Amino acid sequence: MTSHTLFEQIRNKRSYLCVGLDTDINKIPAHLRSDPDPIFAFNKAVIDATAPYCVAYKPNIAFYEALGPRGWESLERTLAYIPEGHFTIADAKRGDIGNTSALYARTFFEYLNFDAVTVAPYMGEDSVTPFLQYKDKWVILLAHTSNAGSQDFQLLESANSGRKLYEEVILRSQQWTGPDRLMYVVGATQAERIGAIRKLAPDHFFLVPGIGAQGGDLDSVSKNGMNARCGLLVNSSRAIIYASSGKDFADAAAREARKVQEEMDRNLQQYL
Amino acid sequence: MTSHTLFEQIRNKRSYLCVGLDTDINKIPAHLRSDPDPIFAFNKAVIDATAPYCVAYKPNIAFYEALGPRGWESLERTLAYIPEGHFTIADAKRGDIGNTSALYARTFFEYLNFDAVTVAPYMGEDSVTPFLQYKDKWVILLAHTSNAGSQDFQLLESANSGRKLYEEVILRSQQWTGPDRLMYVVGATQAERIGAIRKLAPDHFFLVPGIGAQGGDLDSVSKNGMNARCGLLVNSSRAIIYASSGKDFADAAAREARKVQEEMDRNLQQYL
Repeated sequence: MTSHTLFEQIRNKRSYLCVGLDTDINKIPAHLRSDPDPIFAFNKAVIDATAPYCVAYKPNIAFYEALGPRGWESLERTLAYIPEGHFTIADAKRGDIGNTSALYARTFFEYLNFDAVTVAPYMGEDSVTPFLQYKDKWVILLAHTSNAGSQDFQLLESANSGRKLYEEVILRSQQWTGPDRLMYVVGATQAERIGAIRKLAPDHFFLVPGIGAQGGDLDSVSKNGMNARCGLLVNSSRAIIYASSGKDFADAAAREARKVQEEMDRNLQQYL
Repeated sequence: MTSHTLFEQIRNKRSYLCVGLDTDINKIPAHLRSDPDPIFAFNKAVIDATAPYCVAYKPNIAFYEALGPRGWESLERTLAYIPEGHFTIADAKRGDIGNTSALYARTFFEYLNFDAVTVAPYMGEDSVTPFLQYKDKWVILLAHTSNAGSQDFQLLESANSGRKLYEEVILRSQQWTGPDRLMYVVGATQAERIGAIRKLAPDHFFLVPGIGAQGGDLDSVSKNGMNARCGLLVNSSRAIIYASSGKDFADAAAREARKVQEEMDRNLQQYL
């Protein structure tokens, strides 16, 4: 998907919500467990319920991998089911030497046909560029993540530049490709930093995890992070997909997604 | 596997060779492609041929993932076939927020029963510790990798400590667990640095990729990197498993593995 199409979707739907499909076999409603593919049955219902309110879906690959070959089948079915026009993100956090990254790219971009994959920057340029060889496909590079451990190395300050590691990642990676192929992961729990990060990457989309279960604040993220093409995809996983553990899980997911979408609509009116 | 058992294996076999199972469907001999599971057929023959000369096997997960559910089945069969006493490494380079890393750990340690998994440190402590909750299972943390991109961020020098990022990774991670659970990836192409890295982590095993196809030098790695319990697992993938593309591929793999093992025997006599 091009950035133009993505922005069109955001404008049309008045939403920059990404629904995280962190589908855990132990957390889905009991009545689905007798289904031949309970993971897909759950995702299908969640997608039907939330598609009007979101522009992107982000399956967390760990949840599917943990189920072995069956999990990959559920993932394939889920990808095939996501309606045209939704941006799809493989939250895989891959990154390896060139020939290996090329294989991960083939998996997520050719085999599964995702629009984007999350990539860890530790191994540098040649671990990232194989993912950039596909037309209209995206790398979403980890910059400043939402977890406690983001403090351990990402904030390390360079003796040469005075910049922090995540700032170096953002600046150097802009030499590898443009803002139509590259987004950054910027945690919502770092909302006070998003404004500063926006200055480093004025034109890029940020994938923002951490609102909802992880405690980030949507208004603050939007106020500090939005650019002229929105520039934000804000993810919510557990707060939406597990809004209810009963038979009404899909209705509850729709209600939660709609609540976020309405807040996003207000933010788009105010800040775009 | 405990570090004691691993060192016993090294002493008994006079080898610290790890054979990388980067099995590419496009590179295996043509006569295997009609097999119902050509990837496993290839791995089985390579394992039979090389088992006497190595102490570890390292499937590169990207190669299996790229084949979808079939690939996972080949991986499961391969793991089940590796003889007792060989250390098994999932070269997966995972690392995510805590609940997600816990799922990756479950996949590789419970579902597939690997002894170790390679982990990227970018997201910090809570992305790594879920892998440390398993008795006698190991994290192999990326420190200084063998690729060109290792220069991009791993060498960034901290304004506070004067240490490079990879040195910070090595020092801080030692606060998370001891040398019986944690190894480091140190590229053979950085042989001149291995001596200095050994001083930072005197008791840890290093997984050393990059000899053979990537150009690193075994003698230099061994001289600079060995400790009193060997402390090295040196990986070779393509130079062994693709030593021949004909029907004699297994014999050729055995010959190459034996050649490396004999060099390792000499190094063990000289430096241990």
